[in-house]
Amino acid sequence: MHGSVKTRAFSGVLAALVWFAAPAEAAWAADSEPIVSEAATFKLETVAEGLEVPWSFAFLPDGRALIGEREVGRLSILDLTSGTREPVEGLPDMLRDGSISAGLFDIVPHPDFATNRQIYLVHAVGSIEASGLAITRAELENDKLVHLQQLFETGPRLAGKWHFGGRLVLQGGYMFLTTGDGYEFKALSQDLSTHAGKIIRLHDDGKVPTDNPFVGKPDARPEIWAYGLRNPQSMTLQPATGALWTVEHGPQGGDEVNVIKPGRNYGWPVITYGEEYGGGPIGDGITHKEGMEQPLYYWRPSIAPSGATFYTGASFPGWQGSLFVGALAQTHLNRLVVEDGRVIHEERLLADQGWRVRFVVEGPDGCLYIGNDDGLIVRLRAAAND
Amino acid sequence: MHGSVKTRAFSGVLAALVWFAAPAEAAWAADSEPIVSEAATFKLETVAEGLEVPWSFAFLPDGRALIGEREVGRLSILDLTSGTREPVEGLPDMLRDGSISAGLFDIVPHPDFATNRQIYLVHAVGSIEASGLAITRAELENDKLVHLQQLFETGPRLAGKWHFGGRLVLQGGYMFLTTGDGYEFKALSQDLSTHAGKIIRLHDDGKVPTDNPFVGKPDARPEIWAYGLRNPQSMTLQPATGALWTVEHGPQGGDEVNVIKPGRNYGWPVITYGEEYGGGPIGDGITHKEGMEQPLYYWRPSIAPSGATFYTGASFPGWQGSLFVGALAQTHLNRLVVEDGRVIHEERLLADQGWRVRFVVEGPDGCLYIGNDDGLIVRLRAAAND
Repeated sequence: MHGSVKTRAFSGVLAALVWFAAPAEAAWAADSEPIVSEAATFKLETVAEGLEVPWSFAFLPDGRALIGEREVGRLSILDLTSGTREPVEGLPDMLRDGSISAGLFDIVPHPDFATNRQIYLVHAVGSIEASGLAITRAELENDKLVHLQQLFETGPRLAGKWHFGGRLVLQGGYMFLTTGDGYEFKALSQDLSTHAGKIIRLHDDGKVPTDNPFVGKPDARPEIWAYGLRNPQSMTLQPATGALWTVEHGPQGGDEVNVIKPGRNYGWPVITYGEEYGGGPIGDGITHKEGMEQPLYYWRPSIAPSGATFYTGASFPGWQGSLFVGALAQTHLNRLVVEDGRVIHEERLLADQGWRVRFVVEGPDGCLYIGNDDGLIVRLRAAAND
Repeated sequence: MHGSVKTRAFSGVLAALVWFAAPAEAAWAADSEPIVSEAATFKLETVAEGLEVPWSFAFLPDGRALIGEREVGRLSILDLTSGTREPVEGLPDMLRDGSISAGLFDIVPHPDFATNRQIYLVHAVGSIEASGLAITRAELENDKLVHLQQLFETGPRLAGKWHFGGRLVLQGGYMFLTTGDGYEFKALSQDLSTHAGKIIRLHDDGKVPTDNPFVGKPDARPEIWAYGLRNPQSMTLQPATGALWTVEHGPQGGDEVNVIKPGRNYGWPVITYGEEYGGGPIGDGITHKEGMEQPLYYWRPSIAPSGATFYTGASFPGWQGSLFVGALAQTHLNRLVVEDGRVIHEERLLADQGWRVRFVVEGPDGCLYIGNDDGLIVRLRAAAND
């Protein structure tokens, strides 16, 4: 399915041609029939289409939303009332190339955006032969980025085509960044002298916190907060606890959910529940080792998890506290029911849509917004169960 | 599939006709091709067939195994070397009837069986109109039960046809029994004046421990250890911690894994992740309430869990610490990967066999033994991955 919302009630090939009357407030949107799931009934509404791998999505206080498209490195602002989308100019120089999975990664308004107008961008830098990941801070003035300042860059640069990580969280004056292992460089995830396969923690002005766990340790990068990650494309805060959760692409099998704690080693590639693509063990083929953390949950076979968020809104009482995860390889929206810091159940939503889900974000309206590789952004809105 | 082992490698209709040469030690057994799963490769060996709902299975120190068949109320001893099966006589009087799911439930040799020859039996008593669950202790002499003594009986008797519970665990001088809600009497699970829908704890001579949580409480049965259960057909000790785990049939959706702690309320039927058969909420349709425990894990849709055990053996290093659960409705052998008291992954084994799995028991040989409603008992033996 490309470019349209397919409903469960009309899941045949012809069904894509069947459209319902759009509500007057958004003439460009098409609703689905109500979809009944385990703990919520909702309909789908298309809010944007024609995008190129939409990877990030962030609401501004005025109700509009920023959309970042990865390889093309494009940033735009979506007016959710009219459906119009305007490009944002003034982006930092970045490496963007359709032959590698790099370009523009996360887009995060500062928590004090309403007063400081700051936007944080995560993007690739360098060349295909020697690339890195950077955090640039800018201010949004008249829908243009100005006063750009690069706050951080990973090192050393690598000739990696995949596994950049690139998710950013801002919390209490700090920022946390996920980095990937560059795919061909997995041993670096255990090497504290590089930024590959790590969680990075900085003050939100780019300074290194003096209480980071490896500050002062010889041959260790002081920005490192945790290590042993593979390709975490998701990181989000658990609202109830403030804990930092990551979701990472495993190899074949072994996608992981982890709760990140300072100085901890999450094991990649020494321990994993996955195996090499096509089969065969990774390293010694072990899942446990002293001093390395077990995941909170893992998927096997892989779902290829992308963006993730905890749902907190009032629209879906049955979803409060659940972790939603976009799934690429096993096209669906994954819902993990979380109680007391553990996963007690998994539900797979929208499995019949065939969507590679790149992100999932909760809107100020209590709806969930998801973006997929068909270039669609779709809203899940609570509906009555007819 | 009835009465035979179907291999994954030969999963077609004709495959059941293909049999491999049986090993010399057990001429009555048929091996499957090696089955490759996430953390182990194994083959299937039939060790008994032609049984009527084998519900319990317990090894004796001499390497033979007791088999209990529920509705027919039959007990036999299986010689695993020869494959011969001999009936055990001297069973207690019991209610056994094909029209209700009652008869002979669990069979548990006392931990000191080698010296005291004691066998504990859980069985139905009374009539279809007014039935209960009893624990009878006996001694096994010359393969007959003698010196029978009934140690406990649930009260009051109910006109229930389903949901008897019936699993027994002996540990450190105590015994723990699961009881069901009788299906039509679900409110009783919250009523401490009845034994329905509870975990019962007694000394292994039947006396009530004075430190049980409701001893001395007016209108409460002193044998109750925990309450708010629906139909727990599994109970097992986690070897690493000694904790008591139950697995219970939920309603439509909402099968639960719980760790049982004294005095706790597990919520049925006030809170549940399931719904009425055919749809619709149970009670207020809520999943949480203060003072009621959340499950450690739940299944939705239901798998209809039956017997369960933690694997501890050396034959399958990748399975150590996993909880295995027999699934009736969603015919398979369920494996839950457990770390630090939480479930981090679920695997479904033997899903292509179509077996309603009633029990799963670890043998002294490190193999897993499962029984199913086709009357088969099958051994999972570690195999090389060819």
